[in-house]
Amino acid sequence: MEELKPLDIEKRSFGIIDKELKEKNIILPADRENIIKRVIHASADFEYADTMYFSNGAAERAKELLLSGCIIVTDTNMAFSGINKKTLTELGCEAYCFMNDEGIAESSKKTGKTRAYLSMHHAVKLFKGKKVMFVSGNAPTALIALKEIYDEKTYRPDFIIGVPVGFVNVVEAKEMIMETDIPCIINKGRKGGSNIAAAIVNALMYELKRVV
Amino acid sequence: MEELKPLDIEKRSFGIIDKELKEKNIILPADRENIIKRVIHASADFEYADTMYFSNGAAERAKELLLSGCIIVTDTNMAFSGINKKTLTELGCEAYCFMNDEGIAESSKKTGKTRAYLSMHHAVKLFKGKKVMFVSGNAPTALIALKEIYDEKTYRPDFIIGVPVGFVNVVEAKEMIMETDIPCIINKGRKGGSNIAAAIVNALMYELKRVV
Repeated sequence: MEELKPLDIEKRSFGIIDKELKEKNIILPADRENIIKRVIHASADFEYADTMYFSNGAAERAKELLLSGCIIVTDTNMAFSGINKKTLTELGCEAYCFMNDEGIAESSKKTGKTRAYLSMHHAVKLFKGKKVMFVSGNAPTALIALKEIYDEKTYRPDFIIGVPVGFVNVVEAKEMIMETDIPCIINKGRKGGSNIAAAIVNALMYELKRVV
Repeated sequence: MEELKPLDIEKRSFGIIDKELKEKNIILPADRENIIKRVIHASADFEYADTMYFSNGAAERAKELLLSGCIIVTDTNMAFSGINKKTLTELGCEAYCFMNDEGIAESSKKTGKTRAYLSMHHAVKLFKGKKVMFVSGNAPTALIALKEIYDEKTYRPDFIIGVPVGFVNVVEAKEMIMETDIPCIINKGRKGGSNIAAAIVNALMYELKRVV
């Protein structure tokens, strides 16, 4: 096997993805191209080229938020962990995940609500008045919480990356968000995951700045 | 949407997976069933039912290691982060990831080797004489490092979970490990990822003990 340096491996991977997209006659819109390609890079799954949904101007809006030094709230420690912290810090953004918060764990036991659901409510209270991008890579209940909060009309999420994975309420929760006017990037259907969530955040950041 | 408690969501998800496997006429061997089903649960991708490879008695061997309180070394912080730490601790095991180690980052810059490659070498030295399960969810170079070390005949990895994802050297690196006599669980082909790696470790642990 040929020995390659880390960034050469990535460059060559994206070259293969480009070639295979062309063979499949898939042309990605310019504003979404890097994001969808990084998702394919993270999953080796070309299905994402067909299922990723962007609300009108979503990528541009997400990048504006990141440039403004927004807060990112994830619904999994894995997604949190996969976000490139060097680039995040360089942009002046901060990321949080409350899934391991003890108060939330206790409240989950008491109420029977998922920790993801409760941590979205927690984040909305904590960061009210600040710009927040919500990133769900795991739990549809995170999206359900955000939709409920939005419906109450006292708070409007600035942006949602909605790519939970799974079999129960996942498709429905994604559809609920797509039906609102919240700027969002969603993967339709069952697929997604914390790796996909992190790939989307990183792709958006890398369009603005990359710190290796 | 019906409101469900966290463990009910999981139970219902596995019910749907069972049903769809049956519809697809896929019968999973008993010793692999829970592992492959948890991988499908983490990815919503039934392709894994066809591509997961287990060396002879692999699941049994992996569980023996976990019961003996082994060390787990991952090649990504995301995989590390996805492993259920409560259950891990309850089993007396420990997990490590050296991808953010400063020495390894420096050495990577100097040598041009990937951090995953170097962190496997680091782990082998550090934990020599101890039982170690290596878990690769990201970098084929982690598997390449382990194969090189194995070929030198001074160290033999106790177990490898090899599910890196990607387009360059991934298929080949997995094949290299499958050709050895190292007990292993591999996903053949390009697919895999840190979420898949964590799902395999968690599924093995949950067969022994589950701490919510």
